[in-house]
Amino acid sequence: MTRAENSKLPIALDAMGGDFAPQVTVAGALEAQKRGVNVVLVGDEPKLHLELFRQGGRLPVVHAEDVISMDDHAGDVRKRPRSSVQVATRMVKDGEAGAVVSMGHSGATMASALFTLGRLKGVERPAILNRIPSAKGVTYLLDAGANADVKPSYYPQWARLATVYLQSLPLEGGGLEKPSVGLLSIGEEDHKGSQTVLEAHALLRELSNINFHGNVEGNDIFKGTTDIVLTDGFTGNIVLKLAEGEAKVLFGWIREALSSSPLSKLGGLLVRSALQGIRKKMDPSEYGVSLLVGVKGLSFIGHGSADAKAVENGLLYAQRVLESNTLEHLSSALEG
Amino acid sequence: MTRAENSKLPIALDAMGGDFAPQVTVAGALEAQKRGVNVVLVGDEPKLHLELFRQGGRLPVVHAEDVISMDDHAGDVRKRPRSSVQVATRMVKDGEAGAVVSMGHSGATMASALFTLGRLKGVERPAILNRIPSAKGVTYLLDAGANADVKPSYYPQWARLATVYLQSLPLEGGGLEKPSVGLLSIGEEDHKGSQTVLEAHALLRELSNINFHGNVEGNDIFKGTTDIVLTDGFTGNIVLKLAEGEAKVLFGWIREALSSSPLSKLGGLLVRSALQGIRKKMDPSEYGVSLLVGVKGLSFIGHGSADAKAVENGLLYAQRVLESNTLEHLSSALEG
Repeated sequence: MTRAENSKLPIALDAMGGDFAPQVTVAGALEAQKRGVNVVLVGDEPKLHLELFRQGGRLPVVHAEDVISMDDHAGDVRKRPRSSVQVATRMVKDGEAGAVVSMGHSGATMASALFTLGRLKGVERPAILNRIPSAKGVTYLLDAGANADVKPSYYPQWARLATVYLQSLPLEGGGLEKPSVGLLSIGEEDHKGSQTVLEAHALLRELSNINFHGNVEGNDIFKGTTDIVLTDGFTGNIVLKLAEGEAKVLFGWIREALSSSPLSKLGGLLVRSALQGIRKKMDPSEYGVSLLVGVKGLSFIGHGSADAKAVENGLLYAQRVLESNTLEHLSSALEG
Repeated sequence: MTRAENSKLPIALDAMGGDFAPQVTVAGALEAQKRGVNVVLVGDEPKLHLELFRQGGRLPVVHAEDVISMDDHAGDVRKRPRSSVQVATRMVKDGEAGAVVSMGHSGATMASALFTLGRLKGVERPAILNRIPSAKGVTYLLDAGANADVKPSYYPQWARLATVYLQSLPLEGGGLEKPSVGLLSIGEEDHKGSQTVLEAHALLRELSNINFHGNVEGNDIFKGTTDIVLTDGFTGNIVLKLAEGEAKVLFGWIREALSSSPLSKLGGLLVRSALQGIRKKMDPSEYGVSLLVGVKGLSFIGHGSADAKAVENGLLYAQRVLESNTLEHLSSALEG
């Protein structure tokens, strides 16, 4: 299939995945359709047709009678080929879809991508690439949760994948020529960090095809010191959830403070729309999904708690990555 | 020495430690003195007397001609017995001071405590206990940076130390009877986490003298799901710096938003004092210092970038812990 043909393939949405499926998945898919995204719903056909009828929309449906729930084990996908996430991922493998998007069990989505699509050449483990708002725009964090235990050798591979991703993706204002790469640690100095991070640091220093900045610290993520921040999937997951949780609590305190007196209530009314923009920037549903990099195909993972807006934004993002030919670039990332 | 006598000992301040020493250390010590704290300055005598003269205050000074700088290695303290942090720590060991407080090289302060004071019975590695503001009050996090690499066996020891600390410390409203303990991981379910965390989880489940809640996630820290959150020193350090960095960037955005239009400027004036309270809550200098738990003596570690307020608050906190007889409780924490 040519590049142009590939980018016209539909996006397979695991319509049964997520805490509020299929209501929010169908609602999000219908909104994305209005914005020009070519979506196929994958899941229980009678349920999906009923939901489409309820919401008064039309979308193609591919049947999958099984669904992996949040209580299942990630490895179960291998034994359940008729689960919605597996059917959707297989469509990517078979060239029937350009990407798979799932708000369901993250581990199952990853396992499905790993077993069905396979790893890219030179990649030991795929990683989740996440976007975090920063003072300079966006910080790209990986691994955001795929690998709780890591080896130093993963880091140079992830550095290369993220670099190529940022170079190829048509960001607002075009791709970055030389995205900077930081290694998350507990001090800026080269000799600070855990044993794994120290070894990873040495390996990253040797790479000539990335723009390695050196170590960065926790505060550098929001500061935007580097475009890319590398970390293990354990720390990456904690970072993401902490960042979201802190913003939530801070905005709660602000809401409280703004209604603490008649004067601050009046002030609160005047500043409401200004603050709304910041809340929106910090809202995880604005981004919707994260890309799993390192597999032979485009697989996007979202929050189980995703709302329709997150599904819609996730599909739009998947479409943008699909059209940018990012996968072809990623595929040759580790050959140079 | 009896308990009552011990609590009357002065606090030894490493007056040469920190980015802005001795100006801010002396200024903070003089403020703490006004609030009833018995402080001894440790460091270069001529410099400290000059600084006291400049600031128009009087405090006892113990001479130490050497100082560990931020560029030195932590292990150097062993070879430099005349460094200010070593002299101050030795005063605790020798019963001349009730606690040591340093805003200098954290690694050196820890090394000094470890080598000079020694570990408590049953403790393999001391840990930094940090306080993070939460929706429910305060979350106590450890290890906040002392051990980048950990073993599962450290966790039950730290759980016990933090539990006893919270039980003994006269918090606002009295000590907690059964503080809850959470293990920081990447999912609430018992089977989620890195290999080390899974093993630590199993060990914590066996303990009958702590109130183990199970796994908590990144967002639970600010939510205040448990009183205590256990993690390795690598993740703990990232958590702290991320939390501070995020608050800083968010407040920067808010400040910008509140001056984006004449209307929001007016609103900003009306809500300023309400927002000030939240900023204050998130300000690291409000807490000042963190306790190193697991050593035979009270050793407090602060930010290198500490201002006079942080030094003052750190000394007040050290005084409060000293008076609460926390050390005696910690000493027998692992015997039961």
